[in-house]
Amino acid sequence: MTEIEVRSRARIELVDVTSEVAASLARFEPGATLCHVFVPHTTAAVVVNEAADPDVARDLAAAYRAIVPEIPFAHAEGNSDSHLLATLLGSSVTIPIEEGRLALGTWQGIFLVELDGPRRRRLRVSAI
Amino acid sequence: MTEIEVRSRARIELVDVTSEVAASLARFEPGATLCHVFVPHTTAAVVVNEAADPDVARDLAAAYRAIVPEIPFAHAEGNSDSHLLATLLGSSVTIPIEEGRLALGTWQGIFLVELDGPRRRRLRVSAI
Amino acid sequence: MTEIEVRSRARIELVDVTSEVAASLARFEPGATLCHVFVPHTTAAVVVNEAADPDVARDLAAAYRAIVPEIPFAHAEGNSDSHLLATLLGSSVTIPIEEGRLALGTWQGIFLVELDGPRRRRLRVSAI
Repeated sequence: MTEIEVRSRARIELVDVTSEVAASLARFEPGATLCHVFVPHTTAAVVVNEAADPDVARDLAAAYRAIVPEIPFAHAEGNSDSHLLATLLGSSVTIPIEEGRLALGTWQGIFLVELDGPRRRRLRVSAI
Repeated sequence: MTEIEVRSRARIELVDVTSEVAASLARFEPGATLCHVFVPHTTAAVVVNEAADPDVARDLAAAYRAIVPEIPFAHAEGNSDSHLLATLLGSSVTIPIEEGRLALGTWQGIFLVELDGPRRRRLRVSAI
Repeated sequence: MTEIEVRSRARIELVDVTSEVAASLARFEPGATLCHVFVPHTTAAVVVNEAADPDVARDLAAAYRAIVPEIPFAHAEGNSDSHLLATLLGSSVTIPIEEGRLALGTWQGIFLVELDGPRRRRLRVSAI
Protein backbone atom coordinates (compact mmCIF):
# COMPACT_ATOMS: atom_id res chain seq x y z
CA MET A 1 0.00 0.00 0.00
CA THR A 2 1.20 3.49 -0.83
CA GLU A 3 -0.33 6.93 -0.21
CA ILE A 4 -1.02 9.94 -2.41
CA GLU A 5 -1.63 13.40 -1.00
CA VAL A 6 -4.23 15.63 -2.63
CA ARG A 7 -5.18 19.24 -1.94
CA SER A 8 -8.68 20.46 -2.80
CA ARG A 9 -9.62 24.13 -3.34
CA ALA A 10 -13.43 24.22 -3.03
CA ARG A 11 -16.20 22.68 -0.89
CA ILE A 12 -17.23 20.30 -3.69
CA GLU A 13 -14.61 19.61 -6.35
CA LEU A 14 -13.34 16.76 -8.54
CA VAL A 15 -9.54 16.57 -8.45
CA ASP A 16 -7.94 14.53 -11.26
CA VAL A 17 -5.46 12.09 -9.68
CA THR A 18 -4.95 9.79 -12.69
CA SER A 19 -1.26 10.56 -13.20
CA GLU A 20 -0.48 10.24 -9.48
CA VAL A 21 -2.19 6.83 -9.30
CA ALA A 22 -0.47 5.69 -12.53
CA ALA A 23 2.92 6.80 -11.18
CA SER A 24 2.38 4.93 -7.90
CA LEU A 25 2.11 1.60 -9.79
CA ALA A 26 5.91 1.66 -10.14
CA ARG A 27 6.18 1.16 -6.36
CA PHE A 28 4.55 -2.30 -6.54
CA GLU A 29 5.99 -5.62 -7.72
CA PRO A 30 5.35 -6.33 -11.41
CA GLY A 31 2.58 -8.72 -12.41
CA ALA A 32 -0.34 -7.05 -10.61
CA THR A 33 -3.75 -7.31 -12.31
CA LEU A 34 -5.87 -4.84 -10.33
CA CYS A 35 -5.25 -1.39 -8.83
CA HIS A 36 -7.33 -0.35 -5.80
CA VAL A 37 -7.69 3.30 -4.76
CA PHE A 38 -9.25 3.90 -1.34
CA VAL A 39 -10.23 7.18 0.32
CA PRO A 40 -9.77 7.00 4.14
CA HIS A 41 -12.14 9.96 4.72
CA THR A 42 -15.90 10.08 5.35
CA THR A 43 -16.65 13.31 3.44
CA ALA A 44 -14.73 12.56 0.24
CA ALA A 45 -15.09 9.87 -2.43
CA VAL A 46 -13.28 8.50 -5.47
CA VAL A 47 -14.78 7.94 -8.94
CA VAL A 48 -13.74 7.07 -12.49
CA ASN A 49 -15.18 9.36 -15.19
CA GLU A 50 -14.35 11.67 -18.09
CA ALA A 51 -11.03 13.50 -17.77
CA ALA A 52 -10.97 15.08 -21.27
CA ASP A 53 -13.44 18.01 -20.97
CA PRO A 54 -13.11 19.83 -17.61
CA ASP A 55 -16.76 20.95 -17.99
CA VAL A 56 -17.80 17.41 -17.06
CA ALA A 57 -16.12 17.62 -13.66
CA ARG A 58 -17.74 21.05 -13.11
CA ASP A 59 -21.19 19.73 -14.12
CA LEU A 60 -20.76 16.76 -11.78
CA ALA A 61 -19.90 19.01 -8.81
CA ALA A 62 -23.01 21.15 -9.50
CA ALA A 63 -25.22 18.07 -9.91
CA TYR A 64 -23.97 16.52 -6.65
CA ARG A 65 -24.97 19.73 -4.83
CA ALA A 66 -28.41 19.63 -6.51
CA ILE A 67 -29.31 16.04 -5.59
CA VAL A 68 -28.92 16.58 -1.83
CA PRO A 69 -32.49 16.66 -0.43
CA GLU A 70 -33.58 19.66 1.63
CA ILE A 71 -34.38 17.84 4.85
CA PRO A 72 -33.38 18.67 8.44
CA PHE A 73 -30.15 16.86 9.45
CA ALA A 74 -29.23 15.98 13.06
CA HIS A 75 -25.42 15.64 12.80
CA ALA A 76 -23.99 18.66 14.63
CA GLU A 77 -21.07 19.25 12.24
CA GLY A 78 -23.52 20.42 9.56
CA ASN A 79 -21.98 18.31 6.78
CA SER A 80 -24.45 15.43 6.50
CA ASP A 81 -24.80 16.32 2.80
CA SER A 82 -21.09 15.47 2.39
CA HIS A 83 -21.54 12.11 4.14
CA LEU A 84 -24.58 11.36 1.95
CA LEU A 85 -22.70 12.05 -1.30
CA ALA A 86 -19.66 10.08 -0.05
CA THR A 87 -21.81 6.95 0.38
CA LEU A 88 -23.53 7.42 -3.01
CA LEU A 89 -20.23 7.89 -4.86
CA GLY A 90 -18.20 5.28 -3.01
CA SER A 91 -15.05 4.93 -0.93
CA SER A 92 -12.92 3.12 -3.53
CA VAL A 93 -12.43 2.28 -7.19
CA THR A 94 -10.76 -0.78 -8.66
CA ILE A 95 -9.15 -0.62 -12.11
CA PRO A 96 -7.66 -3.43 -14.24
CA ILE A 97 -3.90 -3.34 -14.89
CA GLU A 98 -2.56 -4.61 -18.22
CA GLU A 99 1.17 -4.86 -18.90
CA GLY A 100 1.94 -2.67 -15.92
CA ARG A 101 -0.47 0.14 -16.88
CA LEU A 102 -3.98 1.16 -15.80
CA ALA A 103 -6.40 -0.32 -18.38
CA LEU A 104 -8.70 2.73 -18.34
CA GLY A 105 -11.00 3.58 -21.24
CA THR A 106 -9.99 6.32 -23.69
CA TRP A 107 -11.85 9.13 -21.90
CA GLN A 108 -11.54 7.87 -18.33
CA GLY A 109 -9.60 9.40 -15.47
CA ILE A 110 -9.59 8.87 -11.69
CA PHE A 111 -10.94 11.67 -9.49
CA LEU A 112 -10.85 12.33 -5.79
CA VAL A 113 -14.24 13.88 -5.10
CA GLU A 114 -13.90 16.51 -2.39
CA LEU A 115 -17.27 16.93 -0.65
CA ASP A 116 -16.36 19.11 2.35
CA GLY A 117 -13.30 21.10 1.34
CA PRO A 118 -11.07 22.83 0.85
CA ARG A 119 -8.78 20.35 2.61
CA ARG A 120 -5.71 18.19 2.39
CA ARG A 121 -6.70 14.56 1.61
CA ARG A 122 -4.98 11.21 1.21
CA LEU A 123 -5.63 8.23 -1.06
CA ARG A 124 -4.41 4.69 -0.32
CA VAL A 125 -3.32 2.79 -3.43
CA SER A 126 -2.87 -1.01 -3.52
CA ALA A 127 -2.01 -3.39 -6.37
CA ILE A 128 -2.80 -7.10 -6.42
CA MET B 1 -14.88 -16.68 1.87
CA THR B 2 -16.66 -16.43 5.20
CA GLU B 3 -20.14 -15.18 6.14
CA ILE B 4 -21.45 -12.71 8.73
CA GLU B 5 -25.07 -12.67 9.82
CA VAL B 6 -26.75 -9.32 10.50
CA ARG B 7 -30.18 -8.51 11.85
CA SER B 8 -31.83 -5.20 10.96
CA ARG B 9 -34.63 -3.55 12.98
CA ALA B 10 -36.17 -0.97 10.60
CA ARG B 11 -37.12 -0.63 6.92
CA ILE B 12 -34.09 1.59 6.22
CA GLU B 13 -31.22 1.35 8.69
CA LEU B 14 -27.42 1.43 8.73
CA VAL B 15 -26.02 -1.44 10.84
CA ASP B 16 -22.38 -1.04 11.92
CA VAL B 17 -20.55 -4.31 11.07
CA THR B 18 -16.97 -3.05 11.43
CA SER B 19 -16.02 -5.27 14.36
CA GLU B 20 -17.58 -8.37 12.76
CA VAL B 21 -15.65 -7.79 9.53
CA ALA B 22 -12.43 -7.07 11.44
CA ALA B 23 -12.87 -10.28 13.47
CA SER B 24 -13.44 -12.35 10.34
CA LEU B 25 -9.96 -11.45 9.04
CA ALA B 26 -8.52 -13.97 11.50
CA ARG B 27 -10.15 -16.77 9.47
CA PHE B 28 -7.96 -16.00 6.41
CA GLU B 29 -4.31 -16.82 5.78
CA PRO B 30 -1.92 -14.03 6.79
CA GLY B 31 -0.50 -11.73 4.12
CA ALA B 32 -3.75 -10.53 2.54
CA THR B 33 -3.76 -6.95 1.20
CA LEU B 34 -7.46 -6.31 0.50
CA CYS B 35 -10.69 -7.21 2.29
CA HIS B 36 -13.86 -7.52 0.18
CA VAL B 37 -17.34 -7.37 1.75
CA PHE B 38 -20.23 -8.42 -0.51
CA VAL B 39 -23.98 -8.28 0.14
CA PRO B 40 -25.79 -11.18 -1.62
CA HIS B 41 -29.17 -9.36 -1.45
CA THR B 42 -30.88 -7.02 -3.93
CA THR B 43 -32.53 -4.69 -1.39
CA ALA B 44 -29.54 -4.08 0.88
CA ALA B 45 -26.13 -2.47 0.31
CA VAL B 46 -22.79 -1.99 2.04
CA VAL B 47 -20.95 1.32 2.53
CA VAL B 48 -17.97 2.78 4.37
CA ASN B 49 -18.72 5.99 6.30
CA GLU B 50 -18.58 7.70 9.69
CA ALA B 51 -19.02 5.38 12.66
CA ALA B 52 -18.28 7.90 15.44
CA ASP B 53 -21.50 9.96 15.68
CA PRO B 54 -24.65 7.80 15.34
CA ASP B 55 -26.51 10.89 14.05
CA VAL B 56 -24.68 10.46 10.73
CA ALA B 57 -26.16 6.99 10.16
CA ARG B 58 -29.61 8.36 11.08
CA ASP B 59 -29.23 11.34 8.71
CA LEU B 60 -28.11 9.00 5.92
CA ALA B 61 -31.18 6.76 6.37
CA ALA B 62 -33.47 9.82 6.19
CA ALA B 63 -31.64 11.22 3.15
CA TYR B 64 -31.86 7.88 1.29
CA ARG B 65 -35.63 7.91 1.79
CA ALA B 66 -35.80 11.52 0.54
CA ILE B 67 -33.87 10.99 -2.72
CA VAL B 68 -36.25 8.29 -4.03
CA PRO B 69 -38.28 9.97 -6.80
CA GLU B 70 -42.09 9.87 -6.59
CA ILE B 71 -42.75 8.02 -9.82
CA PRO B 72 -45.04 5.03 -10.48
CA PHE B 73 -43.12 1.72 -10.21
CA ALA B 74 -44.14 -1.50 -12.02
CA HIS B 75 -42.45 -4.16 -9.84
CA ALA B 76 -45.30 -5.93 -7.99
CA GLU B 77 -43.44 -6.36 -4.68
CA GLY B 78 -43.64 -2.61 -4.07
CA ASN B 79 -39.99 -2.22 -3.10
CA SER B 80 -38.47 -0.71 -6.23
CA ASP B 81 -37.23 2.15 -4.04
CA SER B 82 -35.10 -0.41 -2.16
CA HIS B 83 -33.66 -1.79 -5.41
CA LEU B 84 -32.90 1.76 -6.59
CA LEU B 85 -30.99 2.66 -3.43
CA ALA B 86 -29.15 -0.70 -3.48
CA THR B 87 -27.74 0.09 -6.94
CA LEU B 88 -26.80 3.66 -5.98
CA LEU B 89 -25.01 2.57 -2.78
CA GLY B 90 -23.38 -0.58 -4.14
CA SER B 91 -23.19 -4.31 -3.51
CA SER B 92 -19.67 -4.42 -2.10
CA VAL B 93 -16.83 -2.47 -0.51
CA THR B 94 -13.11 -3.20 -0.70
CA ILE B 95 -10.78 -2.05 2.07
CA PRO B 96 -6.97 -2.19 2.27
CA ILE B 97 -5.40 -4.46 4.89
CA GLU B 98 -2.15 -3.45 6.54
CA GLU B 99 -0.30 -5.75 8.96
CA GLY B 100 -3.38 -7.93 9.29
CA ARG B 101 -5.78 -5.09 10.12
CA LEU B 102 -8.34 -3.09 8.14
CA ALA B 103 -6.63 0.16 7.03
CA LEU B 104 -9.74 2.30 7.57
CA GLY B 105 -9.55 6.03 8.18
CA THR B 106 -9.94 7.39 11.73
CA TRP B 107 -13.70 8.00 11.49
CA GLN B 108 -14.62 5.19 9.10
CA GLY B 109 -16.71 2.11 9.80
CA ILE B 110 -18.39 -0.48 7.57
CA PHE B 111 -22.20 -0.50 7.44
CA LEU B 112 -24.72 -2.94 6.06
CA VAL B 113 -27.43 -0.66 4.67
CA GLU B 114 -30.81 -2.30 5.15
CA LEU B 115 -33.22 -0.92 2.56
CA ASP B 116 -36.24 -3.23 2.97
CA GLY B 117 -36.17 -4.48 6.56
CA PRO B 118 -36.45 -5.51 9.22
CA ARG B 119 -34.76 -8.75 8.12
CA ARG B 120 -31.96 -11.18 8.71
CA ARG B 121 -29.12 -10.51 6.23
CA ARG B 122 -25.76 -12.05 5.35
CA LEU B 123 -22.45 -10.55 4.22
CA ARG B 124 -19.76 -12.49 2.36
CA VAL B 125 -16.22 -11.53 3.37
CA SER B 126 -13.13 -12.41 1.30
CA ALA B 127 -9.45 -11.54 1.74
CA ILE B 128 -6.86 -11.53 -1.04
CA MET C 1 -8.25 -9.83 -18.45
CA THR C 2 -10.90 -10.69 -21.01
CA GLU C 3 -13.54 -8.58 -22.75
CA ILE C 4 -17.29 -8.94 -23.27
CA GLU C 5 -19.15 -7.02 -25.95
CA VAL C 6 -22.64 -5.71 -25.18
CA ARG C 7 -25.18 -3.98 -27.40
CA SER C 8 -27.77 -1.65 -25.84
CA ARG C 9 -31.07 -0.69 -27.49
CA ALA C 10 -32.24 2.43 -25.59
CA ARG C 11 -30.77 5.62 -24.12
CA ILE C 12 -31.06 4.27 -20.55
CA GLU C 13 -31.26 0.48 -20.22
CA LEU C 14 -30.06 -2.31 -17.93
CA VAL C 15 -28.58 -5.18 -19.95
CA ASP C 16 -28.24 -8.49 -18.06
CA VAL C 17 -24.67 -9.77 -18.61
CA THR C 18 -24.61 -12.44 -15.85
CA SER C 19 -24.24 -15.44 -18.16
CA GLU C 20 -21.52 -13.75 -20.24
CA VAL C 21 -19.52 -12.89 -17.10
CA ALA C 22 -20.03 -16.40 -15.69
CA ALA C 23 -18.87 -17.96 -18.99
CA SER C 24 -15.75 -15.79 -19.08
CA LEU C 25 -14.54 -17.31 -15.77
CA ALA C 26 -13.51 -20.42 -17.74
CA ARG C 27 -10.80 -18.34 -19.44
CA PHE C 28 -8.95 -17.76 -16.14
CA GLU C 29 -6.74 -20.12 -14.16
CA PRO C 30 -8.63 -22.08 -11.48
CA GLY C 31 -8.42 -20.97 -7.86
CA ALA C 32 -9.56 -17.36 -8.25
CA THR C 33 -11.52 -15.88 -5.34
CA LEU C 34 -12.87 -12.61 -6.79
CA CYS C 35 -14.27 -11.59 -10.17
CA HIS C 36 -13.94 -7.94 -11.22
CA VAL C 37 -16.09 -6.42 -13.97
CA PHE C 38 -15.01 -2.98 -15.23
CA VAL C 39 -16.75 -0.66 -17.70
CA PRO C 40 -14.19 1.36 -19.72
CA HIS C 41 -16.80 4.00 -20.68
CA THR C 42 -17.78 7.29 -18.98
CA THR C 43 -21.52 7.18 -19.78
CA ALA C 44 -22.23 3.58 -18.74
CA ALA C 45 -21.99 1.74 -15.42
CA VAL C 46 -22.19 -1.76 -13.98
CA VAL C 47 -24.35 -2.89 -11.05
CA VAL C 48 -25.49 -6.05 -9.27
CA ASN C 49 -29.25 -6.28 -8.66
CA GLU C 50 -32.38 -8.37 -9.21
CA ALA C 51 -32.40 -10.40 -12.42
CA ALA C 52 -35.62 -12.39 -11.75
CA ASP C 53 -38.41 -9.86 -12.50
CA PRO C 54 -37.62 -7.69 -15.58
CA ASP C 55 -39.90 -4.98 -14.11
CA VAL C 56 -37.12 -4.17 -11.62
CA ALA C 57 -34.67 -3.27 -14.40
CA ARG C 58 -37.38 -1.14 -16.05
CA ASP C 59 -38.20 0.64 -12.77
CA LEU C 60 -34.49 1.30 -12.18
CA ALA C 61 -34.07 2.88 -15.65
CA ALA C 62 -37.08 5.16 -15.00
CA ALA C 63 -35.84 6.08 -11.52
CA TYR C 64 -32.35 6.94 -12.81
CA ARG C 65 -33.94 9.36 -15.29
CA ALA C 66 -36.02 10.89 -12.48
CA ILE C 67 -33.17 11.57 -10.05
CA VAL C 68 -31.18 13.74 -12.51
CA PRO C 69 -31.62 17.33 -11.27
CA GLU C 70 -32.95 19.95 -13.72
CA ILE C 71 -29.97 22.28 -13.65
CA PRO C 72 -28.10 23.91 -16.57
CA PHE C 73 -25.10 21.79 -17.66
CA ALA C 74 -21.99 23.23 -19.39
CA HIS C 75 -20.61 20.11 -21.13
CA ALA C 76 -21.24 20.66 -24.87
CA GLU C 77 -22.11 17.04 -25.68
CA GLY C 78 -25.37 17.39 -23.74
CA ASN C 79 -24.97 14.14 -21.81
CA SER C 80 -23.87 15.37 -18.39
CA ASP C 81 -26.86 13.46 -16.96
CA SER C 82 -25.21 10.25 -18.22
CA HIS C 83 -21.89 11.14 -16.62
CA LEU C 84 -23.68 11.96 -13.34
CA LEU C 85 -25.46 8.60 -13.21
CA ALA C 86 -22.27 6.76 -14.21
CA THR C 87 -20.46 8.16 -11.15
CA LEU C 88 -23.38 7.42 -8.82
CA LEU C 89 -23.73 3.80 -10.02
CA GLY C 90 -20.03 3.03 -10.35
CA SER C 91 -17.49 1.86 -12.90
CA SER C 92 -16.99 -1.68 -11.58
CA VAL C 93 -18.40 -4.48 -9.45
CA THR C 94 -16.48 -7.18 -7.60
CA ILE C 95 -18.11 -10.54 -6.86
CA PRO C 96 -16.82 -13.47 -4.78
CA ILE C 97 -16.01 -16.74 -6.60
CA GLU C 98 -16.60 -20.05 -4.84
CA GLU C 99 -15.58 -23.37 -6.39
CA GLY C 100 -15.16 -21.72 -9.77
CA ARG C 101 -18.57 -20.03 -9.82
CA LEU C 102 -19.85 -16.52 -9.09
CA ALA C 103 -21.13 -16.53 -5.49
CA LEU C 104 -24.11 -14.26 -6.26
CA GLY C 105 -27.23 -14.21 -4.10
CA THR C 106 -30.36 -16.06 -5.26
CA TRP C 107 -31.96 -13.07 -6.99
CA GLN C 108 -28.81 -11.27 -8.11
CA GLY C 109 -27.57 -10.70 -11.64
CA ILE C 110 -24.91 -8.42 -13.16
CA PHE C 111 -26.10 -5.55 -15.38
CA LEU C 112 -24.34 -3.20 -17.74
CA VAL C 113 -26.21 0.08 -17.22
CA GLU C 114 -26.39 1.94 -20.51
CA LEU C 115 -26.80 5.67 -19.79
CA ASP C 116 -26.30 7.21 -23.26
CA GLY C 117 -27.31 4.56 -25.79
CA PRO C 118 -28.12 2.82 -27.93
CA ARG C 119 -24.48 1.79 -28.41
CA ARG C 120 -22.01 -1.04 -28.57
CA ARG C 121 -20.17 -1.34 -25.21
CA ARG C 122 -17.38 -3.45 -23.73
CA LEU C 123 -16.77 -4.85 -20.26
CA ARG C 124 -13.35 -5.89 -18.94
CA VAL C 125 -13.45 -8.99 -16.72
CA SER C 126 -10.58 -10.00 -14.41
CA ALA C 127 -10.26 -12.84 -11.88
CA ILE C 128 -7.86 -12.88 -8.94
